[in-house]
Amino acid sequence: MIIGYFGDPGSYTSMAAKLMLGGRYVSYRSILDIVNAIERNELDFGVVPIENSIEGQVGQTYDIIYYKDIYINSEYYMKIDHCLIGNSEINKIRFVHSHPQALAQCSNFINKNGFIPVPEYSTSYAIKTISEINNDEHAAIGSEEAANLYNLKIISKSIQNNINNYTRFISISKHMNDHGDKYSIGFSLENRPGSLSRILNIISAFNINMTKIESRPYAKNPFSYIFFIDFEDNGYGNVLIDIIKRETINFKLIGLYRKSGIETGY
Amino acid sequence: MIIGYFGDPGSYTSMAAKLMLGGRYVSYRSILDIVNAIERNELDFGVVPIENSIEGQVGQTYDIIYYKDIYINSEYYMKIDHCLIGNSEINKIRFVHSHPQALAQCSNFINKNGFIPVPEYSTSYAIKTISEINNDEHAAIGSEEAANLYNLKIISKSIQNNINNYTRFISISKHMNDHGDKYSIGFSLENRPGSLSRILNIISAFNINMTKIESRPYAKNPFSYIFFIDFEDNGYGNVLIDIIKRETINFKLIGLYRKSGIETGY
Repeated sequence: MIIGYFGDPGSYTSMAAKLMLGGRYVSYRSILDIVNAIERNELDFGVVPIENSIEGQVGQTYDIIYYKDIYINSEYYMKIDHCLIGNSEINKIRFVHSHPQALAQCSNFINKNGFIPVPEYSTSYAIKTISEINNDEHAAIGSEEAANLYNLKIISKSIQNNINNYTRFISISKHMNDHGDKYSIGFSLENRPGSLSRILNIISAFNINMTKIESRPYAKNPFSYIFFIDFEDNGYGNVLIDIIKRETINFKLIGLYRKSGIETGY
Repeated sequence: MIIGYFGDPGSYTSMAAKLMLGGRYVSYRSILDIVNAIERNELDFGVVPIENSIEGQVGQTYDIIYYKDIYINSEYYMKIDHCLIGNSEINKIRFVHSHPQALAQCSNFINKNGFIPVPEYSTSYAIKTISEINNDEHAAIGSEEAANLYNLKIISKSIQNNINNYTRFISISKHMNDHGDKYSIGFSLENRPGSLSRILNIISAFNINMTKIESRPYAKNPFSYIFFIDFEDNGYGNVLIDIIKRETINFKLIGLYRKSGIETGY
């Protein structure tokens, strides 16, 4: 089985991929590249981040699972512990390289130390860059695993603003699972008062636990939206989906998979 | 009146600021820097992007208007027309610098030409960088205004993937307006089935047009959410707010302002 993951070796997504699926792992520079490789049958699965408990939705992942013939097959919640990584001392460092989300998640630490943030493609690419440039003024933010992989030292641990920093990863493929206990759906609605309320009432009437509602812009029509809802099956998930399908526009069943992790519900 | 805007001179936000408010304009490198300056009374207003019709929410703006003593005073929708800007010919260019959102919005053009995207703080900073490095292999993506400001030429116009590319900007200050016809609110909810449905039912019962619902992670409690709702006043907005306040947790009235632009409703 061939599994594509986002980022360079040592990325958080590579770690998630190894915990979620067994096989041969291939690194990709973008989420779109992974999806293109799945469509060309070069990959069985892709592993990508979908949301972070501090920074929120990964918009590109939402857009891809809605617009492409791609389905969610599993989910995994990983605690993110960011480290300052390099080859020098903290007082020599001026520039800190990382993915923009990781820089944002460590903004207090960066500001306190007066570091200049340098955005990179991924945390692991930032760490690889540091190992190559070998300059005392440059450090990176990323995982302990990536630091070990590139023979760099951990200068500071757990430097994120908020200790409750989790990322939800999903595995995606061309195929829908035939069983599971959690559904992801996406749809748009007619623009009239009460249209979304009606959908949530149906969910509520089934006494079904909605773990998430998210909106993304519908690119074809400025400031109209696609709504994404995750809910736990209570035995009537299939019936609920049939009903919602009739009440919405451009409905897509995005995934059926085993619920994992730490979510709450609304 | 002193108005802070995000980005360098010539940024889309600087253009929005000039269309929204009159006074002296000051450039800031981050949205948080603007809010800190408002809190220190160095600025009367800030102008920041809150959402884009292609890329979605500006997460940091949502977090700031919810967690800080900051209110929305007005909104403005601007059509974004990205240009490829530089001093050379299209076939010499290898690297394209811009804000990550602008790079994403022009990804088709970038991929088709085989350019390597280079993320920068802001579109205007990217253009400034190009004017300084003066290297034929480097170009930037940004506004025609910024190209003129830095004496660079427009190599290609309207290079965004989707022609329907609008950004919604807001002006923010320490004070709430005392009139307007559109409200923004934020709140969290108890984790039980139907809790969000109940709020949307109340809005629907008032026959009020909800123009937006957005969720952001509630940082203190992983994978619980803050809900953001915008709605148009129909004369009973104040009553609606009193009722919603009693039904939610951590309610904040974020803004009352004049409705502008091209939104639809749910």
